[in-house]
Amino acid sequence: MLSGAFLTEFYEYVTADGLLSSNAEDNLAVFDVFFRDIPDNGGFAIAAGLDTLVEHLCNLKFSDEELSFLEGKGFKGRFSDYLRNFKFSCDVWAIPEGTPIFPGEPIIKVKGPVIQAQLIETFLLNTINFQTLIATKANRVVRAAQGRSVVEVGARRAHGYDAAVLGARAAFIGGIDGTSNFAAAMKHNIPVISPMTHSWVQMFESENEAFSVYLREHSKDAILIVDTYDTLRSGIPNAIKAFDNILMPIGKRPKAIMIDSGDMTYLSKRARRMLDLAGYADCGIIVSNSLDESLIRDMLVQGAKIDSFAVGEKLITSQSSPVFNGVYKICEAQINKKIQPTIMVSDNVTKITTPCDKKLWRLFDMETGKAIADVLTLNEETIDSSKPFQLFDPIFTWKRKLVEGFVARELLVPVFKNGECVYRRPALKEIRNYCLEQVSTLWEEVLRFENPHAYYVDLSERLWKEKQRLIEYRVGKGNYGNGQD
Amino acid sequence: MLSGAFLTEFYEYVTADGLLSSNAEDNLAVFDVFFRDIPDNGGFAIAAGLDTLVEHLCNLKFSDEELSFLEGKGFKGRFSDYLRNFKFSCDVWAIPEGTPIFPGEPIIKVKGPVIQAQLIETFLLNTINFQTLIATKANRVVRAAQGRSVVEVGARRAHGYDAAVLGARAAFIGGIDGTSNFAAAMKHNIPVISPMTHSWVQMFESENEAFSVYLREHSKDAILIVDTYDTLRSGIPNAIKAFDNILMPIGKRPKAIMIDSGDMTYLSKRARRMLDLAGYADCGIIVSNSLDESLIRDMLVQGAKIDSFAVGEKLITSQSSPVFNGVYKICEAQINKKIQPTIMVSDNVTKITTPCDKKLWRLFDMETGKAIADVLTLNEETIDSSKPFQLFDPIFTWKRKLVEGFVARELLVPVFKNGECVYRRPALKEIRNYCLEQVSTLWEEVLRFENPHAYYVDLSERLWKEKQRLIEYRVGKGNYGNGQD
Repeated sequence: MLSGAFLTEFYEYVTADGLLSSNAEDNLAVFDVFFRDIPDNGGFAIAAGLDTLVEHLCNLKFSDEELSFLEGKGFKGRFSDYLRNFKFSCDVWAIPEGTPIFPGEPIIKVKGPVIQAQLIETFLLNTINFQTLIATKANRVVRAAQGRSVVEVGARRAHGYDAAVLGARAAFIGGIDGTSNFAAAMKHNIPVISPMTHSWVQMFESENEAFSVYLREHSKDAILIVDTYDTLRSGIPNAIKAFDNILMPIGKRPKAIMIDSGDMTYLSKRARRMLDLAGYADCGIIVSNSLDESLIRDMLVQGAKIDSFAVGEKLITSQSSPVFNGVYKICEAQINKKIQPTIMVSDNVTKITTPCDKKLWRLFDMETGKAIADVLTLNEETIDSSKPFQLFDPIFTWKRKLVEGFVARELLVPVFKNGECVYRRPALKEIRNYCLEQVSTLWEEVLRFENPHAYYVDLSERLWKEKQRLIEYRVGKGNYGNGQD
Repeated sequence: MLSGAFLTEFYEYVTADGLLSSNAEDNLAVFDVFFRDIPDNGGFAIAAGLDTLVEHLCNLKFSDEELSFLEGKGFKGRFSDYLRNFKFSCDVWAIPEGTPIFPGEPIIKVKGPVIQAQLIETFLLNTINFQTLIATKANRVVRAAQGRSVVEVGARRAHGYDAAVLGARAAFIGGIDGTSNFAAAMKHNIPVISPMTHSWVQMFESENEAFSVYLREHSKDAILIVDTYDTLRSGIPNAIKAFDNILMPIGKRPKAIMIDSGDMTYLSKRARRMLDLAGYADCGIIVSNSLDESLIRDMLVQGAKIDSFAVGEKLITSQSSPVFNGVYKICEAQINKKIQPTIMVSDNVTKITTPCDKKLWRLFDMETGKAIADVLTLNEETIDSSKPFQLFDPIFTWKRKLVEGFVARELLVPVFKNGECVYRRPALKEIRNYCLEQVSTLWEEVLRFENPHAYYVDLSERLWKEKQRLIEYRVGKGNYGNGQD
């Protein structure tokens, strides 16, 4: 609904302008996207947002409105001309959407003129961070539901218009079955679901009349909401009466009832019994009311009789963990005409970056098909599956493990080559299937909700040594730290 | 960046279609927006999003793409024609943006043909919920900073493109001083700030060179980022050297240094001392690193020497409380040709709605100017400030208080009349000033972060009685409840 201005932070322009003034704009640089923490302290995240990013990058240009606003801020002449004639020419690699990803590994890599790679930072991160967050959350919810249907109904509490639409997209990748969001269903071809509203019931003198009129209009796939006044004493009896009076005579069956408040475990059991006794054992029970993966798991443990979960604000905002902290960091730069690895050294150890143009490999066990570990190597390295490979922990380097009988798959695939899209963009349904399949390659221990096993993300020995060398080069030995003195 | 499809949930169409089929589309209805819980268990929220809503409503129409998608879903003929010729004709009242608001009170009221009032539900809530959430959070952060500058830098972790832009807008209403978000600055005329990037530092052989080149390009308002390698041993000394060598000779002063990691309280004190000793007592210190109101308060208690807080993901997602749970409920409807109050009765007591077309009044103490209480009345009632007014708690009705010497202000102002905008849309800066002024009418006890005093939101006696009558009418006496039996 907003005008299509380019999402940038102002300092991207300041940096870009500075590069141009120093005639450094075409210096080659490599940037990585990586993230630091898994939402909800889970065992993995689900990559999402790439297709939206591709769409943005294919349409990248600066509008007259943007240019004149920049000129008003003092950016003139050569910089303004540069932006007016901007043509994206970077190479981009990315991990395909739907892939399980882990902290510290490059999930997108951008290589090209430093000015361009810098300018795309903010909208790239905005796109990837949000959709990855929601796909990750949705996958948790879907796994908690153990095969029962999950639908997304959070549009009213999403953080704005495209959070609602792109959130539904990402949730579908993570495994939900449908959405109530019309715009998302239309744009991304997601199955749409439609429960009844409380307001419909309130528009009639009686609940019974409201149900009857509704079923007359919607005899197919009708979902009646039964908690407007009193679920057990009014809602369900009236629903059954309406099924009997309106659907039975025309040979139709009800689809479901929906309960939106109260203790859903208890109510679902009572509702199931009432429906079964009335001859509607095939009528489903949908519940909604601030659901998330924890509540769903608990309700199922308690024997709730639920066929479908409508999940709202806790999914579309990832309420319990609403930030995906992907960052975009330069790992190689052309300095004084020479390509050099770069590093950022931080007092916060998790903020230290891994230098160099890199590759990312996932090692799968040949026998079980399970993922064993991910390994970052220098770009020129290859992992040879025909030989045993030694993994070692990049922090606790004495932790070592020799793996054999594996296949190594490169995870970063080419997406743009010299600014041209070279990626076959898969359909959303295909991405969703791929996601479910890839999640099944993870060990149960990594899938655990609470305190999952930390999946290995290791560095090759050469990359590890290069990183140590750079840290020492940048901060010296034995003299680092901002500690008290 | 997305196409401007209308944000609706599918069941709005199902309901609308049903109304049309029953020839009930033009029945009059009144809907209220109200919310249930204050984010972060605070004492109040800040209304925001109205201007965006007005923009949407002024441009409300259904595209051919939407219509043909709907036709594909089976909505044809009369319904399709209705949407094609849709013209908004409702009356809308709203509490102006920037006003402190409280649970249970109508913040927007829509009155008009039920089919229209129903169709706008989802995008209305989406717009109001998100911006109110962020304005509320921003106001907390700004109050914690006690007059120091606060800037919004969360675009990369906002939930999508318009969360970044509209979030910056809402944060400005709540009191922030600027944003790093270029699109938001441009669209909403918000001051823009521009710190330096780590990547700039990494693009040079040495930090010293990076600073020097940067200051040569940006000698005005320059902010140097000092934590790329080692804040105290490298960053700050290099910054001072660059100030001495580049700015001093041309008679310029530095604006600030920025610290983005490490213990910011400790580092800020050390940085202050180093800058002062070097003759840069006028150089500000900006910090950023997962800041929110709690951390800011704590750092200031500990004597941190900070001039400006750059607040990112914890503000733009309202991380500690990322859902604003505004709902849209029908409170009056034309049933069998008669306008009747409507209610929803829920097992969850907070989900019970307040019936009737209502007014909302805020009572201000004439002597102190402080807000005493809000009162909901029937639409035809008036609060006469010349007489004492008896407040009573709608739940604990024995809690009563007689107030005198007050002025009563109606909070809901007309925004649309017969679908035409009748509201003078204030400039964003004006809304921000109004917000700060209105927050100052709240008692200190309501402003408290932890366990604030619950501000009174009461019902007039007539409205209270009508609500009780309807509850009893809908569920009977002595027989309600879904409890175990």
